[in-house]
Amino acid sequence: MKLLVTAFEPFGGETLNPALEALNRLGDSIDTVKLIRVEVPTSFKRALGAVKRAIEAEAGEKPCAVLMLGQAGGRSALTPERVAINIASARIPDNDGFMPFEEPIVPGGPAAYFSTLPIVKLTEAIREAGLPAAISNSAGTFVCNSLMYGVLHWLESEHPAIKAGFMHVPYAPEQTAAMASPQPSMSIQDITRGVEAALRALIMNIK
Amino acid sequence: MKLLVTAFEPFGGETLNPALEALNRLGDSIDTVKLIRVEVPTSFKRALGAVKRAIEAEAGEKPCAVLMLGQAGGRSALTPERVAINIASARIPDNDGFMPFEEPIVPGGPAAYFSTLPIVKLTEAIREAGLPAAISNSAGTFVCNSLMYGVLHWLESEHPAIKAGFMHVPYAPEQTAAMASPQPSMSIQDITRGVEAALRALIMNIK
Amino acid sequence: MKLLVTAFEPFGGETLNPALEALNRLGDSIDTVKLIRVEVPTSFKRALGAVKRAIEAEAGEKPCAVLMLGQAGGRSALTPERVAINIASARIPDNDGFMPFEEPIVPGGPAAYFSTLPIVKLTEAIREAGLPAAISNSAGTFVCNSLMYGVLHWLESEHPAIKAGFMHVPYAPEQTAAMASPQPSMSIQDITRGVEAALRALIMNIK
Amino acid sequence: MKLLVTAFEPFGGETLNPALEALNRLGDSIDTVKLIRVEVPTSFKRALGAVKRAIEAEAGEKPCAVLMLGQAGGRSALTPERVAINIASARIPDNDGFMPFEEPIVPGGPAAYFSTLPIVKLTEAIREAGLPAAISNSAGTFVCNSLMYGVLHWLESEHPAIKAGFMHVPYAPEQTAAMASPQPSMSIQDITRGVEAALRALIMNIK
Repeated sequence: MKLLVTAFEPFGGETLNPALEALNRLGDSIDTVKLIRVEVPTSFKRALGAVKRAIEAEAGEKPCAVLMLGQAGGRSALTPERVAINIASARIPDNDGFMPFEEPIVPGGPAAYFSTLPIVKLTEAIREAGLPAAISNSAGTFVCNSLMYGVLHWLESEHPAIKAGFMHVPYAPEQTAAMASPQPSMSIQDITRGVEAALRALIMNIK
Repeated sequence: MKLLVTAFEPFGGETLNPALEALNRLGDSIDTVKLIRVEVPTSFKRALGAVKRAIEAEAGEKPCAVLMLGQAGGRSALTPERVAINIASARIPDNDGFMPFEEPIVPGGPAAYFSTLPIVKLTEAIREAGLPAAISNSAGTFVCNSLMYGVLHWLESEHPAIKAGFMHVPYAPEQTAAMASPQPSMSIQDITRGVEAALRALIMNIK
Repeated sequence: MKLLVTAFEPFGGETLNPALEALNRLGDSIDTVKLIRVEVPTSFKRALGAVKRAIEAEAGEKPCAVLMLGQAGGRSALTPERVAINIASARIPDNDGFMPFEEPIVPGGPAAYFSTLPIVKLTEAIREAGLPAAISNSAGTFVCNSLMYGVLHWLESEHPAIKAGFMHVPYAPEQTAAMASPQPSMSIQDITRGVEAALRALIMNIK
Repeated sequence: MKLLVTAFEPFGGETLNPALEALNRLGDSIDTVKLIRVEVPTSFKRALGAVKRAIEAEAGEKPCAVLMLGQAGGRSALTPERVAINIASARIPDNDGFMPFEEPIVPGGPAAYFSTLPIVKLTEAIREAGLPAAISNSAGTFVCNSLMYGVLHWLESEHPAIKAGFMHVPYAPEQTAAMASPQPSMSIQDITRGVEAALRALIMNIK
């Protein structure tokens, strides 16, 4: 059994992305399940390709699920996302300088895809690990939502057995230390621990 | 050289107080400065006595400064308090069941006391340690403000050489894990590290 | 030309619903367009029926669009909703005492429907009227989202020419006056004016 | 009987100040009490002079109380201030381009002055008028706090019979209409109504 875990590179002028920091602290496996860890460009146009390649490149058994991670500055909790919607609309440029306004991700595609991960179980597991968690009903309209939509859309036709979903993480304290009015944060150790709790819940609840 | 560090016991239905958890993780000294650590009851009537006794009990050299710690649920950062005001007004009962409404702490006392700690230096030191910090202009009107006012008022007449001030800390993640809409938190390890950074800045900047 | 405008009755212990107050302040027409105004029960099971009946009951020409209104306590702006998702999950009982947990609204239905109203135009029109507005990417998972989903699902098959969408409105000041820590509000006069601006934009932008 | 009501001119790049808009909508009297209305420059150095001149210029009977008004962007309620503290520290320049950092307003002056207005009564009266209100424990460290401190300090020695205090008001919707993520607001009509309710409570409770 294998899981694919992805995280975005830093964006928006930040020098780190807490999701990527957590990804880099995960081991090669969790319990006996192999973890494939992939850094994804914060790019509307290139993010999906990185996930596709990671899945296609995997010789033999494919991962049974994909957990994508990204930063949601301002949130206080780890937030498994419920749904990705077919819209790309940005307030800041992505790392390619691209800033779409109210465009469909997949013209003619469905309005939305629900996460195929057990988000209630993930949320409960993180809370049981003593960390704040909540289901989020919006992944926004930036690259995170776009990747989640793209992956679920692609898997539906190409690898329908592979489950996938997204979880946003708060800022790390290192990022908020410089803010005059600090926003909420979570330590990278705790984010990592929360991701591990979510992955264990995923392994337990996926057949 | 000695420092007195105090923290409140849990209150408001909580089973832990992150300020007290941090206090309990501090060592007996920081660099070569002895730390006297004291737990304080979350009681308008009994809190001040605990701090007075700790100072009076100290044989030989008295502590040169007092850093009082308390929980401020909802805040995202470590917040050295600028000022304590002469008012006690509570929305929830203290641990004695006492809930004053718009009463002076010291009838006839001055409207306020400024912290005599170098709060700008404390804030900078915590930020340099990679943790969010900001000066707070209000310690509220609950037991925290009352203790800060009481200690500064008492020291002014009895031990004018001893500096004193208060720092609020966010919820710990253990506390927000159970919230349906989680509030900001900071790990107890990070709170402890932030308190240590503040104490080092205090030692460096106190003559 | 006719428009149907709906608003929910009070819920969650409130004695008024600012959306309904605004509805009751709208006239019988806006410019030369007739307004059909309908109060809707805050009930997962009964809300959709009220809208269906209003549309079916209309002799002759049907309304060309439906603007549904509801209260979103805590928001600062008028927020045209982008999308309704196929999930019902409540933290408080609806006005029938029903509190679903993570259930589909329409088993087997699509994950989501996008608003078929010109939400960017509506938002711009409200701002041009001097009132705060923003597109919302989540209508939540309570009765508001459920009605929006149900109406869009039903119209798709039964009246595909009729456009529909939802707009959330803030608390009224009358509601927040009693809160110890007041949440954001908007006066009922301003909410009404914002709804009128949205309706005018709708009339201008619907063919 | 006379009351002096003051409000600041716009600052921080805004083209209106909701406090000043409300001031301009007050009549020449409230019930039978004459209102003297004065616009005050948003300047650390010039604000106090404007209030002093208004009081000194008044031939015959002096006003029995001063209610100063200012904008506190981000607040949801009308907030009578409890206390002004002896510190000037700005994050943005005032309208003279002056931006003090951690300076005393009056070197050697007391740490703070409490409002001498009946702030509990003012808050209750505004709530009874159906508008959100709350006592604030911090007027910040910008020009508003500085004026409040300066006026209370000056009155103490020169006109000890004159009561004085400050009330902050939220943004007006006109200001938040342009914000991508709108902050809380209150209509200028409601702010005016709230100020009138506060003034009536002041008249009733001042001897």
